[in-house]
Amino acid sequence: MRSSPGMVVRTVGICLKPEQPQLVDLVRGLERWLTERGIRVMLDPQAAGVTGAAEVPRSDLAAKVDLVIVLGGDGTLLAVARAIGDRPVPVLGVNLGTLGFLAEIASDEMYDALERVLAGGFRIESRMRLDVSVQRGARECGRYRALNDAVLARNAVSRMIDLETFANGVEVTTYHADGVIAATPTGSTAYSLSAGGPLLLPESEAIVLTPISPHTLTQRPLVLPATCAVEICVRDTRGGEVRLTVDGQVGCELGEGDCVRVHRSAHPILLLVSPERNSFEAMRTKLRWGAR
Amino acid sequence: MRSSPGMVVRTVGICLKPEQPQLVDLVRGLERWLTERGIRVMLDPQAAGVTGAAEVPRSDLAAKVDLVIVLGGDGTLLAVARAIGDRPVPVLGVNLGTLGFLAEIASDEMYDALERVLAGGFRIESRMRLDVSVQRGARECGRYRALNDAVLARNAVSRMIDLETFANGVEVTTYHADGVIAATPTGSTAYSLSAGGPLLLPESEAIVLTPISPHTLTQRPLVLPATCAVEICVRDTRGGEVRLTVDGQVGCELGEGDCVRVHRSAHPILLLVSPERNSFEAMRTKLRWGAR
Amino acid sequence: MRSSPGMVVRTVGICLKPEQPQLVDLVRGLERWLTERGIRVMLDPQAAGVTGAAEVPRSDLAAKVDLVIVLGGDGTLLAVARAIGDRPVPVLGVNLGTLGFLAEIASDEMYDALERVLAGGFRIESRMRLDVSVQRGARECGRYRALNDAVLARNAVSRMIDLETFANGVEVTTYHADGVIAATPTGSTAYSLSAGGPLLLPESEAIVLTPISPHTLTQRPLVLPATCAVEICVRDTRGGEVRLTVDGQVGCELGEGDCVRVHRSAHPILLLVSPERNSFEAMRTKLRWGAR
Amino acid sequence: MRSSPGMVVRTVGICLKPEQPQLVDLVRGLERWLTERGIRVMLDPQAAGVTGAAEVPRSDLAAKVDLVIVLGGDGTLLAVARAIGDRPVPVLGVNLGTLGFLAEIASDEMYDALERVLAGGFRIESRMRLDVSVQRGARECGRYRALNDAVLARNAVSRMIDLETFANGVEVTTYHADGVIAATPTGSTAYSLSAGGPLLLPESEAIVLTPISPHTLTQRPLVLPATCAVEICVRDTRGGEVRLTVDGQVGCELGEGDCVRVHRSAHPILLLVSPERNSFEAMRTKLRWGAR
Repeated sequence: MRSSPGMVVRTVGICLKPEQPQLVDLVRGLERWLTERGIRVMLDPQAAGVTGAAEVPRSDLAAKVDLVIVLGGDGTLLAVARAIGDRPVPVLGVNLGTLGFLAEIASDEMYDALERVLAGGFRIESRMRLDVSVQRGARECGRYRALNDAVLARNAVSRMIDLETFANGVEVTTYHADGVIAATPTGSTAYSLSAGGPLLLPESEAIVLTPISPHTLTQRPLVLPATCAVEICVRDTRGGEVRLTVDGQVGCELGEGDCVRVHRSAHPILLLVSPERNSFEAMRTKLRWGAR
Repeated sequence: MRSSPGMVVRTVGICLKPEQPQLVDLVRGLERWLTERGIRVMLDPQAAGVTGAAEVPRSDLAAKVDLVIVLGGDGTLLAVARAIGDRPVPVLGVNLGTLGFLAEIASDEMYDALERVLAGGFRIESRMRLDVSVQRGARECGRYRALNDAVLARNAVSRMIDLETFANGVEVTTYHADGVIAATPTGSTAYSLSAGGPLLLPESEAIVLTPISPHTLTQRPLVLPATCAVEICVRDTRGGEVRLTVDGQVGCELGEGDCVRVHRSAHPILLLVSPERNSFEAMRTKLRWGAR
Repeated sequence: MRSSPGMVVRTVGICLKPEQPQLVDLVRGLERWLTERGIRVMLDPQAAGVTGAAEVPRSDLAAKVDLVIVLGGDGTLLAVARAIGDRPVPVLGVNLGTLGFLAEIASDEMYDALERVLAGGFRIESRMRLDVSVQRGARECGRYRALNDAVLARNAVSRMIDLETFANGVEVTTYHADGVIAATPTGSTAYSLSAGGPLLLPESEAIVLTPISPHTLTQRPLVLPATCAVEICVRDTRGGEVRLTVDGQVGCELGEGDCVRVHRSAHPILLLVSPERNSFEAMRTKLRWGAR
Repeated sequence: MRSSPGMVVRTVGICLKPEQPQLVDLVRGLERWLTERGIRVMLDPQAAGVTGAAEVPRSDLAAKVDLVIVLGGDGTLLAVARAIGDRPVPVLGVNLGTLGFLAEIASDEMYDALERVLAGGFRIESRMRLDVSVQRGARECGRYRALNDAVLARNAVSRMIDLETFANGVEVTTYHADGVIAATPTGSTAYSLSAGGPLLLPESEAIVLTPISPHTLTQRPLVLPATCAVEICVRDTRGGEVRLTVDGQVGCELGEGDCVRVHRSAHPILLLVSPERNSFEAMRTKLRWGAR
């Protein structure tokens, strides 16, 4: 966790949730607000699409801006985080709909929050990510980066699959299950929680392995040090289909023998959060955690 | 539970696990053993396929035989149970591989078991089944019968689905989950258990509703009286695919608005079980339930 | 479930939560309201204590009244249910504080509800109870009746205990745990749920066995038919103390070798419930079951 | 994890499980074996009790010896760890009975293991411990050190308790439960696992908070960074008794208003483990984790 006292914002990128033409006023208003303060604005293709302005690909934004504002929800922020790649640019999530864990600024608080961000009043919180790669024989056939999780799961029409799992080359267990989730602490409040995983503070560091509907009574979620290199190999699909899904958004089909390697990325995402932000309160509010 | 003292066996049907040409000797041996005792034998297409004899469709067997012998595992027995339909013909499961809950006779005990069956020494255990139908608007577009379970679940690439659920027309809950399982007591040791459901005695009567990876912290498995008519309606698929799968074997795609109706079938399956059979021991042995 | 169209109420018993002197006006007002309608009123010692009138022991009430009104919460109703014994007298629970599963009438709805009860507008719902006895060698050294549950549990300073469990004389499992709960369907929303047990409709019939913090990964809750006679025997206390607690209120110390027998009581409790009552809604409201 | 290539062992302390007079030959044999190698031996009161030799209090051992050998099981090792206090002396656990997580050397492998230890062939594995203190008003009224866990729990005859919990002074949640467990990674395979907590590698660093039978559907285990200072305050006992128990062995009664503070101890325990030791294998073997 680093504070951002000397944060100088000359250029801001705006990323928008797809297919929101009705938000044209919001984007134009934000653009004007920033321009009035001498800040240059770049729009991602979705934002440019609704205003008719020039667009900058999301993958180019990080190199060109000092701050990315995401207008959308957690899903949009996950997609932007994936697109901006390795550059350590701070991201501010503005929530347009339901409550989010990542996009925590409500849209009616946006300008107040931005004033505080520009005044150096927000914290930069580093959130661990996972580098995910698919090994097929000697060949790497897919690379992803996850802010929430990498999920290996059978298809609905398939049956139980066997996933042999290693940590730093040492055998962990073989999951006979619908699948397994490798989650970051940020992802511990997402799908992993649904499958019975524990809660972790999003700003902490660890890898959580949570089995999905294990077909043995003896499986339990496992919390590994963030430094572990995890490898999950598809041993038996019983003729069914198995998929890797990263952050619920991208992925690929897996076959028997394929191995998914997961380890802490050298490139965390930098979230701008208000100094009042409190992960426990977020869990209580958004998950109704502990509610009577 | 009824005993079978006066069980008269004049004709026996033999059903075989698919694609087992190497079992030709087992099928022929069994056929001969029965014929020597004056019993007529009918073979299902799989069994006839390996011996080259005439075949009788599984759906015709129940009307023509006094006893069905299933050579295979639980999967084969589930398929045979579905095929034989409404006729109350006793079924004896002979296990060819791993331990089963339904096919409990090991293949090397088969002839001993049959001697006892013919002598009236086995019990007939009635196992509740579920009638499952799919309602699309005013139209019924699918009918199934389940010995284990009916599962509504999203596809691996899809997201959480919303399933509004009713019992006898009264709202139960809306599952925001990967899916929900409606299981018989027999099915309580199968997929429902993997998803966190409780154990029930297979010979008891109830319907278990077990959510799969519920996206709310507050869901719990629910055990309903067997007399409940359950209706599960697909409310929101978030653009993904949803499937109904019955006994892990058959089913259909579901769309938003489709409702799956589940209620106790008037036609239980009649399993022949040895008098020594003990459901608790079966759970301890096959699930390692309670093992230290 | 029986309706109460011809319910004739000549005498009413009023039971009060202990130590509520401030409720003198409520008790007197209810007494007056009933007397004005020609109904005789009898007060239990707690109610008599606050008004100064003559008292009737709770254990005598059932034989003398046509209806028992319980002013208190679920705890008071559990205590009254235990006290009134075998007589099938209808009980109406009026809730004075937090929401209850058993005492469902809010105090400000009391007179409206009573009008409807007298007019035959309420249903009588039969709730299964458990007869619980403690066997020490050849001697029965304790008898209880449970509306919620019978709990065998180690003391806080003790260690894991071993509880060998039988159903109809057949070995079920040995719990190596902090304890085990034998719950009715009514009790399935109480302590059993905290320990991970499933939900059952309170008006259904079954016995739920839920282990408390089992020291093996392989334990699961078990739902038995209501007709099962369950026996739980204390095999090893590791030098610690073990207690039987019935409905969280009464019980006794147990020693190694003691066995607790639990079976469905021939004497259910008869709860008066409004025709609009809906057990699923009660679960959703009071447990926040399924809440997002 | 540090290796011990230059480990010089001049003096060894031997600690014995209490009340094992039949082990006199084992202790004498070990004493002789060490003496023959020029190593001085000191016996704790239990070991001295069976041989009749002079005794050294366990609390003095750490300052006087280069290695402590514990003859017993996990319980004995927990007790020795507590007694030896802050001094960083390596501990070797020799298991005399059932399999242990801490005492991993079988007694028949003891001399082989010691040869390897003296040759520098064992690793020293640092295991995080917790400093636990009880705050009553302004006064600290108890201090403990935990290798497994600190448990706040109600007594068997008591009801649910309310435990308000803070991390670094920030409110985490209020547990309405039978209690809560604050566990080390080493303790994650002990009581915390029984209560539904996740598995952690014993050599990792974290604090696990696991509720015991939470009376709300919304509680989940929480994994905190090892750097968190946790405070658990007894808010409501509902007239019952609450106890703090450390490592299942020592502790004290708690009253309303008492707060238990838990944070990572500056003094880990140093376990000698064989280079082949593998925590995942230990979990699979000793917990049957993942067993089919």
